[in-house]
Amino acid sequence: MSKVVTLGEIMLRLSPSDKNRFVQADSFDVVYGGGEANVAVSLANYGHNAYFVSKLPKHEIGQSAVNSLRKFGVNTEFIVRGGERVGIYYLEHGASMRPSKVIYDRADSAIALAKADEFDWDAIFQDAKWFHFSGITPAISKQGAEITKQACIAAKKHGVTVSVDLNYRKKLWTPEQAQAVMKDLMQYVDVCIGNEEDAELTLGFKPGGDVTKGELDHKGYERIFEQMQKEFGFKYVVTTLRESHSASDNGWSALIYNGNEFYYSKKYEIRIVDRVGGGDSFSAGLIHGLLTKPTQGEALEFAVAASALKHTIFGDYNLVDEKEVETLAKGDGSGRVQR
Amino acid sequence: MSKVVTLGEIMLRLSPSDKNRFVQADSFDVVYGGGEANVAVSLANYGHNAYFVSKLPKHEIGQSAVNSLRKFGVNTEFIVRGGERVGIYYLEHGASMRPSKVIYDRADSAIALAKADEFDWDAIFQDAKWFHFSGITPAISKQGAEITKQACIAAKKHGVTVSVDLNYRKKLWTPEQAQAVMKDLMQYVDVCIGNEEDAELTLGFKPGGDVTKGELDHKGYERIFEQMQKEFGFKYVVTTLRESHSASDNGWSALIYNGNEFYYSKKYEIRIVDRVGGGDSFSAGLIHGLLTKPTQGEALEFAVAASALKHTIFGDYNLVDEKEVETLAKGDGSGRVQR
Amino acid sequence: MSKVVTLGEIMLRLSPSDKNRFVQADSFDVVYGGGEANVAVSLANYGHNAYFVSKLPKHEIGQSAVNSLRKFGVNTEFIVRGGERVGIYYLEHGASMRPSKVIYDRADSAIALAKADEFDWDAIFQDAKWFHFSGITPAISKQGAEITKQACIAAKKHGVTVSVDLNYRKKLWTPEQAQAVMKDLMQYVDVCIGNEEDAELTLGFKPGGDVTKGELDHKGYERIFEQMQKEFGFKYVVTTLRESHSASDNGWSALIYNGNEFYYSKKYEIRIVDRVGGGDSFSAGLIHGLLTKPTQGEALEFAVAASALKHTIFGDYNLVDEKEVETLAKGDGSGRVQR
Amino acid sequence: MSKVVTLGEIMLRLSPSDKNRFVQADSFDVVYGGGEANVAVSLANYGHNAYFVSKLPKHEIGQSAVNSLRKFGVNTEFIVRGGERVGIYYLEHGASMRPSKVIYDRADSAIALAKADEFDWDAIFQDAKWFHFSGITPAISKQGAEITKQACIAAKKHGVTVSVDLNYRKKLWTPEQAQAVMKDLMQYVDVCIGNEEDAELTLGFKPGGDVTKGELDHKGYERIFEQMQKEFGFKYVVTTLRESHSASDNGWSALIYNGNEFYYSKKYEIRIVDRVGGGDSFSAGLIHGLLTKPTQGEALEFAVAASALKHTIFGDYNLVDEKEVETLAKGDGSGRVQR
Amino acid sequence: MSKVVTLGEIMLRLSPSDKNRFVQADSFDVVYGGGEANVAVSLANYGHNAYFVSKLPKHEIGQSAVNSLRKFGVNTEFIVRGGERVGIYYLEHGASMRPSKVIYDRADSAIALAKADEFDWDAIFQDAKWFHFSGITPAISKQGAEITKQACIAAKKHGVTVSVDLNYRKKLWTPEQAQAVMKDLMQYVDVCIGNEEDAELTLGFKPGGDVTKGELDHKGYERIFEQMQKEFGFKYVVTTLRESHSASDNGWSALIYNGNEFYYSKKYEIRIVDRVGGGDSFSAGLIHGLLTKPTQGEALEFAVAASALKHTIFGDYNLVDEKEVETLAKGDGSGRVQR
Amino acid sequence: MSKVVTLGEIMLRLSPSDKNRFVQADSFDVVYGGGEANVAVSLANYGHNAYFVSKLPKHEIGQSAVNSLRKFGVNTEFIVRGGERVGIYYLEHGASMRPSKVIYDRADSAIALAKADEFDWDAIFQDAKWFHFSGITPAISKQGAEITKQACIAAKKHGVTVSVDLNYRKKLWTPEQAQAVMKDLMQYVDVCIGNEEDAELTLGFKPGGDVTKGELDHKGYERIFEQMQKEFGFKYVVTTLRESHSASDNGWSALIYNGNEFYYSKKYEIRIVDRVGGGDSFSAGLIHGLLTKPTQGEALEFAVAASALKHTIFGDYNLVDEKEVETLAKGDGSGRVQR
Repeated sequence: MSKVVTLGEIMLRLSPSDKNRFVQADSFDVVYGGGEANVAVSLANYGHNAYFVSKLPKHEIGQSAVNSLRKFGVNTEFIVRGGERVGIYYLEHGASMRPSKVIYDRADSAIALAKADEFDWDAIFQDAKWFHFSGITPAISKQGAEITKQACIAAKKHGVTVSVDLNYRKKLWTPEQAQAVMKDLMQYVDVCIGNEEDAELTLGFKPGGDVTKGELDHKGYERIFEQMQKEFGFKYVVTTLRESHSASDNGWSALIYNGNEFYYSKKYEIRIVDRVGGGDSFSAGLIHGLLTKPTQGEALEFAVAASALKHTIFGDYNLVDEKEVETLAKGDGSGRVQR
Repeated sequence: MSKVVTLGEIMLRLSPSDKNRFVQADSFDVVYGGGEANVAVSLANYGHNAYFVSKLPKHEIGQSAVNSLRKFGVNTEFIVRGGERVGIYYLEHGASMRPSKVIYDRADSAIALAKADEFDWDAIFQDAKWFHFSGITPAISKQGAEITKQACIAAKKHGVTVSVDLNYRKKLWTPEQAQAVMKDLMQYVDVCIGNEEDAELTLGFKPGGDVTKGELDHKGYERIFEQMQKEFGFKYVVTTLRESHSASDNGWSALIYNGNEFYYSKKYEIRIVDRVGGGDSFSAGLIHGLLTKPTQGEALEFAVAASALKHTIFGDYNLVDEKEVETLAKGDGSGRVQR
Repeated sequence: MSKVVTLGEIMLRLSPSDKNRFVQADSFDVVYGGGEANVAVSLANYGHNAYFVSKLPKHEIGQSAVNSLRKFGVNTEFIVRGGERVGIYYLEHGASMRPSKVIYDRADSAIALAKADEFDWDAIFQDAKWFHFSGITPAISKQGAEITKQACIAAKKHGVTVSVDLNYRKKLWTPEQAQAVMKDLMQYVDVCIGNEEDAELTLGFKPGGDVTKGELDHKGYERIFEQMQKEFGFKYVVTTLRESHSASDNGWSALIYNGNEFYYSKKYEIRIVDRVGGGDSFSAGLIHGLLTKPTQGEALEFAVAASALKHTIFGDYNLVDEKEVETLAKGDGSGRVQR
Repeated sequence: MSKVVTLGEIMLRLSPSDKNRFVQADSFDVVYGGGEANVAVSLANYGHNAYFVSKLPKHEIGQSAVNSLRKFGVNTEFIVRGGERVGIYYLEHGASMRPSKVIYDRADSAIALAKADEFDWDAIFQDAKWFHFSGITPAISKQGAEITKQACIAAKKHGVTVSVDLNYRKKLWTPEQAQAVMKDLMQYVDVCIGNEEDAELTLGFKPGGDVTKGELDHKGYERIFEQMQKEFGFKYVVTTLRESHSASDNGWSALIYNGNEFYYSKKYEIRIVDRVGGGDSFSAGLIHGLLTKPTQGEALEFAVAASALKHTIFGDYNLVDEKEVETLAKGDGSGRVQR
Repeated sequence: MSKVVTLGEIMLRLSPSDKNRFVQADSFDVVYGGGEANVAVSLANYGHNAYFVSKLPKHEIGQSAVNSLRKFGVNTEFIVRGGERVGIYYLEHGASMRPSKVIYDRADSAIALAKADEFDWDAIFQDAKWFHFSGITPAISKQGAEITKQACIAAKKHGVTVSVDLNYRKKLWTPEQAQAVMKDLMQYVDVCIGNEEDAELTLGFKPGGDVTKGELDHKGYERIFEQMQKEFGFKYVVTTLRESHSASDNGWSALIYNGNEFYYSKKYEIRIVDRVGGGDSFSAGLIHGLLTKPTQGEALEFAVAASALKHTIFGDYNLVDEKEVETLAKGDGSGRVQR
Repeated sequence: MSKVVTLGEIMLRLSPSDKNRFVQADSFDVVYGGGEANVAVSLANYGHNAYFVSKLPKHEIGQSAVNSLRKFGVNTEFIVRGGERVGIYYLEHGASMRPSKVIYDRADSAIALAKADEFDWDAIFQDAKWFHFSGITPAISKQGAEITKQACIAAKKHGVTVSVDLNYRKKLWTPEQAQAVMKDLMQYVDVCIGNEEDAELTLGFKPGGDVTKGELDHKGYERIFEQMQKEFGFKYVVTTLRESHSASDNGWSALIYNGNEFYYSKKYEIRIVDRVGGGDSFSAGLIHGLLTKPTQGEALEFAVAASALKHTIFGDYNLVDEKEVETLAKGDGSGRVQR
């Protein structure tokens, strides 16, 4: 398979068990995750030679984050070790009409304080086929933005395909700050993933519809995608289409546009086990699909099936293999026991 | 905010984890709760100066019950300490068509054997704005009935608004016994909460409909409410309207009548995490609503949203704050992750 | 009640907690179960004098399997002790569109290597009313097939009614092997339970419909049942009708045929807690129903209600009593709390 | 082996996990146990046909107590079913200099309110070889005392050997009350087990030494034993000799007197896992020893080894078999891994 | 009892369960604690009106810290709410020769960034009898040092007795920095608690002995104490004397000096459950002792017994009451079950 | 560091939690381990490029075993994937005088049925510095013996140092069978590790002493070592010296002989958390020591300190790094908290 590289932050995730609230917790479930780390794990699960690039402290919490990646076969040799903090996010799982809650405590993490020249970009991208990043890393700090930019430049220098998940985070920056950084980065991007909110807040494209109502305006998306493709020359513009019925049940599908035609995927109705990392599993499925499938439609169906399955799996990582995704993408969602 | 007082029994609740049956349990989850204690916790969560009045043994099980209240800011200074037992109820969580089960072991608890003169009623109700009790406390023993009566008399003497949750418990008394005690107490009550079953069994009003079928006869309710209002002069008569589709899914709404007009709330379809305390969270939401909202309709919508959220939270207590309830009451039940 | 005998393998079941995947497990939940053992536990729960016949090692894992049966009142005196292994199956609980997975590790278990003459068949069937076996035991080994045959012969000698759950397991044998053994055993069978897949693979009857689509062809079933009844002279031919909407939600009903008329049961829509043992709980409910009810329809409704409840209970065993089943069979599936 | 009968109360034991204090508990570990039930389980583990006689409610908590006994092979057919409560004791495990704590909540349990004529004494003692009771059952209520007396009379009528564990409980009665009842019961007793505190408080023999200091006055014990043997004609008088270094470490040995000579056992130094039931496991080991060993010394060594092992096992029951006890009694306490 | 005030930081403590290492953790046990918060909880447990003063974020993690204090009766009304972070420390429990490990992640916590004028010092110290702080708070930031100084000034203005636990933390400052701040603060201190390492690093007194060897040089301590008392005019100089045999076993005693005579306490040999908070529980015991006992010796024995018990209790807080401490201080460490 | 290779079986280990017995288990703790896998993990933890060679099924249980190694940095590229079973061992943790118990269920595992030509021995040993195997792999099957032999031949061909842990397992073969295979393999061995029991049973050297008594005959060891060295030409002969005081406490030291002089290590007294893998951690420490230390004495002290620490860590793997071992080997076993 292919060498693929992702760059970003991996955090310690602390969540009360089951559906408990923060104030009820006597213990926290511990997993490690973060947008681009999640993508790397998925790609390793599909058989790719996946590298995750970041910086982590040498202490045991940093080591545990490294171990969580190694366990699933991600190559961690380009993770720089040093700094003080592993970023944290606290997660409370919602249920029914009670939403999930995230409290971030990620300031001054090792990667947020890292410098671009700590990374050996040529070694990282040598023989690589794909590079993926998200809008989170440039948002965590000025250094994060610079690291992302240097990675993009190096990737392009090595002829690597670049994808981005726009992933706007309002706790990290304002739309103005986001656009100042992200628009510049788009020149390196081949595949742009982001929903209408991301498109508006990080790139300035005005969507229609009102996502809090769970309605999705297909025509509005198509118009925005055409504009995005035109302005930045993306090979593909892609979005997931989430219908939030409640914290327990979501509708899930996606849309891809290759500059020529739009393809809407099949829609899944999901009973949610763990919604976090759903978008990342979609990005990973899409990368795998675009690397291995003949059409954008087949790539998208793989991505949507992969990410639908993610919603049924605890933790940030999507622990499914290619065959499981294919089975669902080909239509067997009956859930019958496999003996 | 306001000083509010509730009076009653707080019990040790023992439940097998998850959906396990009693005969499968190697451990019991431990929480403390009881109708009026649950109301006090909710009111403390909304910012009120909430007092729970009861009697509890000095030993560590009694202390743990006190601690569970203090943890959430309930004032426990009027809980008399002494006696031998903390009442117990065993709870088995149902699922789908398998109902939840409760086994009571509450006889001869400290509060059931307490005497009315152990409480300093004047201190308790000084400067209070609201007093809430339920039909359970007068049912647990003759002393319980006398304590409740003395509390009502003192509340009225101090100009406190009084609410009751009729809450008929067939294991504790017969309809005849209930009516003998409860009809007399209604003279002190301003706000009467109870479903048609309660209205019939504790006050003698004959409802229509058949609640085991999940059908609710609106007209029947309205007729009964008019009679109740007429006979006892209640300022408000209120009921929740539960539609038990299964142990996992319920419809949930409510009705209020101010002697002038009926208001039916929005209906929620709930995936249930823990159904116990749903009615108590409604009472608390209603008290808060009536204390702070301009109309009975807004008060009721707050109460219904609050209690819908309760069904998604483990334990007897409704661990939500005012803002969370308002968000749902205003219409956002999409369950999207809050970051 | 009646002495009933079941024969087969009881295995150690190892499953990650909640909805976790195998690769996430730091511990496995431990229960013991197996088709015929599950039937025995149900029958003991309904008050019968239930015997489970098998062979288990003397070591503590074997003892734990025995204890799991004794705990629920199954008579274990005819379990031969010896051999090396307790068969194992690993179970991963699915969710939504992700199916449950079973990995078997059952080769060379004590019962698979046991010999027919280790069992005292006359003592086992003395005064018995019913004998139940499944298509699994003859499949696990040649010895297993011989043991099953000797049990059938002895049962018939003692005038015992015999039921079979065809239960084809493709990991254990081919259709050709299955038919070679199973067709011969049918001469002893009074009540034959099996879905269309079982009927085709173990007895050679060609079904219609495509069960992976969740569609069920009633007419096709009826034609097959008539053929089966004709060829083997069964008193009853029975099948469950599962509609697999997903790993979380199933439709569940059943069909019985007494050679004269077909009876379709009520259908339940189930939120699944643990699907394993659903078929076994149905067999047990049917045996109890046929032993105690006046009509095939009432027997079937008991069986379907019993097995619907099983889906809400963790583990292989159906831990419900007769009264709970009757309550559901008579129509109260409202799930209201029973106090 | 022999039919042996024990009579008494089995309680629900609720304990915080590990070394947690009551006020820290979010869950309680659940086991069932009680002096005579514990003896019955041990005797079943040694291969005897052990019957436990008591009364338990029909509800699921009562059933769980029955199941806990059946699981380990105790015959429960003479447990009368009815009444309301299963007695409870809360247990907090101590550590180092912090003592374990027990809070009893056992008043008005089913057995405490049972009547002697609810039991079929002739069936119970038919063909029995041994009957064991303790000083707890006569202490729980007048009915308990009467039940115990009727059991003793019936046992003697059937020629059954009778043993008692004096087991004084100061929360249940005064020394005066105890002596009024217990002295009368001693006429039926062949084997009397009790430490110096028990001997003083229930039978009025004045011991020397001060057990809170962990010192044990051997001479004092011998004098008391001689008096006890003389007054009541016991075949054996027996006591354990506990040296409480701390809640974590105890010295453990025993003394037996057959009216002729004294035998002191080997002493074990124990790291304690769970101290509760230590005395009961001793009684059971002694009964087994006296039933099967040629000398009082060998019987006592079996009893002491058995009960030393109990201290390393969680719960009230001593889950060891005869061979494990023999191995230790014969001197291998090296704790080397057994593969 | 007395109004007592402590000031400092309360942190979220995250620890792998049992004796697991960080890299093995799939969950972290969650408690809240910190030197001065721990002191406040102990004092509340002894019946004092204990106030903890700090700053905590409004979010649920901050609220959980508040709740952990309220649960045990600490008054939290003077905790300022605001800021972003709750400081964290990761704790790995050691065993035998493997030491416990702490990883701090406490920079930029709400209290570290708070300002002295956010606190209403007059209200805080009105009617107070005692103020306790430690060398940690002045070390966490310049603001922390200023807050501590303002608190000391206000305490003295209100005639409050002041105690300090020197508690040098090498991760927070250098000895030079520590001495620059701490020597100045000593002018307000009446009771100074600290071991020889603290005395050297924060106050510049050179100790003898080598604590890593577990040897304690009594004469050296006495000389240092005399110097400290002379230089700063302390009423009492106090230290614990820990002998670290291993992570599982410690010797534990203490020394007090009132400027006149030295008193050495009894020594305890402890099997450790949780060593963290041992020093804080000693400080609290000493404060209670000095407030209520006639002699420094009795005060010290209370403090040592209290803190010995702490080592047997999970978490930072010492969850024992006055009576339990007195029982041990008076000599009953036998650990016999208390029924 | 060095490329090191180990070869053997990795098994699924299933153990009741804490000190529970098998018959009490409702769940099993899950770890993976096996003699040579454990050695590989240790060597990876010390910074070596460690390879574990084996065969494992492709299913999720096999994958989980692979993941457990990758997590700690072991290179798994030479693990052949295929076969049906992962070998299992059930482990019950002992306490005090109750020994730990192991029940093996490892027959017909993937590696036991593997063939020598499935492995690419040249690639495996290219550039390797050390090869370690144990007496278990040749014992599991004829194929296992052949695989071991081929590995030894290839190792020698590549100039790799070879160590063996004799590790006699009486459940797998007789002394005669063992000697027939093992004596032949000794020709490839440079470093021979084994206690007197191993030396006798696998190589035929008659030891003195009686290890069940915890006595160790130093002189006897020295005589055997001299004979072993003479007969097989080992560079080093090494043994651990375990003194089993109980399942909770062991004395632990070791002896090494380089053909010239004997060196006895320091002795540790250990409070045991998990004894399994103690010998493997010793082998790994020894390999690291011999690869990096100037003298056999320093190598041995590292090995003994490393394995002493292992006894304090749950699971088969020794999760300590080089620095932690050095700290202990240099004498700091005080267990003081490391902040």
